[in-house]
Amino acid sequence: MRHLLDFEGWTEDDVRAIFETARAMKEVLARPIKTVPTLKGRTVATVFFEPSTRTKTSFELAAKRLSADVVSFSGQASSLKKGESYQDTLKTLAAYGVDAFVIRADAAGVPHQATRWVDAAILNAGDGWRAHPSQALLDAFTLEEAIGPLRGKKIAIVGDILHSRVARSNAELLAILGAEVWFAGPPPLLPRHPFFGARVTARLEEALKDADAVMALRIQRERISGGLLASEEDYRAGYQITEDRLALAAPGAPLLHPGPMNRDVEIEGTLADGPRSLVLAQVANGQAIRMAILYHLLVGGGS
Amino acid sequence: MRHLLDFEGWTEDDVRAIFETARAMKEVLARPIKTVPTLKGRTVATVFFEPSTRTKTSFELAAKRLSADVVSFSGQASSLKKGESYQDTLKTLAAYGVDAFVIRADAAGVPHQATRWVDAAILNAGDGWRAHPSQALLDAFTLEEAIGPLRGKKIAIVGDILHSRVARSNAELLAILGAEVWFAGPPPLLPRHPFFGARVTARLEEALKDADAVMALRIQRERISGGLLASEEDYRAGYQITEDRLALAAPGAPLLHPGPMNRDVEIEGTLADGPRSLVLAQVANGQAIRMAILYHLLVGGGS
Amino acid sequence: MRHLLDFEGWTEDDVRAIFETARAMKEVLARPIKTVPTLKGRTVATVFFEPSTRTKTSFELAAKRLSADVVSFSGQASSLKKGESYQDTLKTLAAYGVDAFVIRADAAGVPHQATRWVDAAILNAGDGWRAHPSQALLDAFTLEEAIGPLRGKKIAIVGDILHSRVARSNAELLAILGAEVWFAGPPPLLPRHPFFGARVTARLEEALKDADAVMALRIQRERISGGLLASEEDYRAGYQITEDRLALAAPGAPLLHPGPMNRDVEIEGTLADGPRSLVLAQVANGQAIRMAILYHLLVGGGS
Repeated sequence: MRHLLDFEGWTEDDVRAIFETARAMKEVLARPIKTVPTLKGRTVATVFFEPSTRTKTSFELAAKRLSADVVSFSGQASSLKKGESYQDTLKTLAAYGVDAFVIRADAAGVPHQATRWVDAAILNAGDGWRAHPSQALLDAFTLEEAIGPLRGKKIAIVGDILHSRVARSNAELLAILGAEVWFAGPPPLLPRHPFFGARVTARLEEALKDADAVMALRIQRERISGGLLASEEDYRAGYQITEDRLALAAPGAPLLHPGPMNRDVEIEGTLADGPRSLVLAQVANGQAIRMAILYHLLVGGGS
Repeated sequence: MRHLLDFEGWTEDDVRAIFETARAMKEVLARPIKTVPTLKGRTVATVFFEPSTRTKTSFELAAKRLSADVVSFSGQASSLKKGESYQDTLKTLAAYGVDAFVIRADAAGVPHQATRWVDAAILNAGDGWRAHPSQALLDAFTLEEAIGPLRGKKIAIVGDILHSRVARSNAELLAILGAEVWFAGPPPLLPRHPFFGARVTARLEEALKDADAVMALRIQRERISGGLLASEEDYRAGYQITEDRLALAAPGAPLLHPGPMNRDVEIEGTLADGPRSLVLAQVANGQAIRMAILYHLLVGGGS
Repeated sequence: MRHLLDFEGWTEDDVRAIFETARAMKEVLARPIKTVPTLKGRTVATVFFEPSTRTKTSFELAAKRLSADVVSFSGQASSLKKGESYQDTLKTLAAYGVDAFVIRADAAGVPHQATRWVDAAILNAGDGWRAHPSQALLDAFTLEEAIGPLRGKKIAIVGDILHSRVARSNAELLAILGAEVWFAGPPPLLPRHPFFGARVTARLEEALKDADAVMALRIQRERISGGLLASEEDYRAGYQITEDRLALAAPGAPLLHPGPMNRDVEIEGTLADGPRSLVLAQVANGQAIRMAILYHLLVGGGS
């Protein structure tokens, strides 16, 4: 594995190799001293052309836990305004001896292009609506911890599917792991052409029925003001995950959300903090998964 | 000591234990190599929901001197706008394995609430007008270095008392150490109900008379434009600490300011840089005190 | 060498000492593990009162490669608005035990003043239009790698000379190394009084003729909107470095640019990424040069 852009060409064995390393990283993170010397003297750059708190912090801390040096570049506080292009930014940082770039971009495809611009490992930390593979890996890892192997399991993904790179990457990865994915959401937020074999429905109940796990996606308030949604109230009425609706799923089916959550919008508040919520397990596993990805890209192992 | 929120329940012995550790940390800071491995592999998060340069830098460098990993979160450059609540932010960071949170918030009580949200040590780095205990500890430590034990000493605190968390925390801590605190300032900037036994007066001379030390507080220019003060000139005329006014205090009484200073407003410019000013000693001691606090919270010792 | 402010008083031997250390640092940077313990426990503060991505990142990474602790202060996200002066900011940071300050300021002379304010090494990372000595050192180092010793060589520097601290520092350093410097640019962007013996011309061809190397400077778009330049198109027509114009220089003469470049403005796009461009070599050498400077200031050697 040289880059992590999406899951094109991945086999289940590739996924299992990452999960196995992530389990070893979780053991490191359970120790009082959470640092290992694995990437001592190597340099990881986080390059975020779109703001993000969680993913950036998660990757930077993962790199530090592995003793890497971290360089941080954010497109807003930078000389991007001065006319520097994405390409120049990455080539400049590469000239500093960066070994891996963690890239988030508002435009799809920037991480792919980056593999041609610089001689370093590229991790896609989210590009436009296209892909967010580390999120999908941590979601699937968290799901398997909770409900076991995903082959043949029904996973319901609810909310703004159309604009969601999380939905796309989850569908792609869950297909590799043999799960059956259902997308549900308001019709204007559903994709016209389904992707990666996922089933698409506007009827929430159909997606939730006997689902082994339910994932609610973030609703971007911009979409509501932009007219794609009538109102937040309408969304709640039709698609909020409530106790009653979750009862349609398999008994004890867990609930996920990639965060940050709009409290009491996508998920009823009490559920979000309840025993079936895996939200904080996702965050904690995110760090282990990102340590595992950095390990596979910079040290090797797996594929 | 599990958290540092304010000084409720503290004894003089608790304060002395911090001071003793701070003296050891000052010895570390006097060496060419200022780093010790005390907190290697532990993680300290600074979470500032309100901007600050000094306190944030001071805590981050203190944590680095102790070899901790530092995660930095600032409420303005973050996804707080995206609707993430204080609680979600802290729980997310806690899931990364943070051992101690240094929290500044514009609302009083957030650090107290945080102790219920996450399983980590909480340090209050200033919450609203309520408390700023690390500042009070460094002030008292600096005072004792300059004028000896504070029991029975008269300390004058001058300026905007009403809106000052520094004034509150100083009064609380100085009472524990047995000092006599006088507050002086323009009537609209004085508290209606005095706190922690401090005396309150609008007559600057009364507070300064025979004072063993004088602390000027920062005047927020917002308060002036907000109408609480007639003008900066009026403040200067009535409450600026000048050579003449300082002559009312005990001979050689030192002068403190928590910074950042409005030059030539709270203190006459020449005094601020003169031999009686402890302003830079406060900054230097701030680092030692914050190293001591982190040590007591994360390693133990003291109470 | 106690500070790096500009090249006043420098001899060629001083420059050669820096270059020799930089060559050793390049060997470190060619290793998989790019970190050495040289500055372990020492503290370097980057204090940027004017935004910059490249220079700040370059210095911070150089300091980290040498195992120094790095404190970062940026004038925009800080309490500067709260009325804190440059002087107070630097004195406060110095009280934390900072060993070296890397200072960028929009006003000329701030780094010089800083040497009187604090007891630490001062590195000028650019002050107004005045000087940017680390840039000149990396440029000359890169030039010598490409074309050998600079004595007697003709170097053409093209663009907005008047407002360029890069032009000033390059002229000063290249004079020490015995090169012959030619400045060319639109008349409103040329200095009225030439500096450091450089020749000044509005005729690009005169500067390029038989030049051993060509350096294009960044055009600030603000200058164009400010009326000093008729239009970007006019600049291109008169002063853009193109294949045809570069043919006037000595065969194979290399092309430099301090970055960030306005693509297809100062340099024809294909040339910028072509084999004669040293732009990325400049960036990579910048790190080695800055490591060398920090070494000479904090450890000694050279002069």
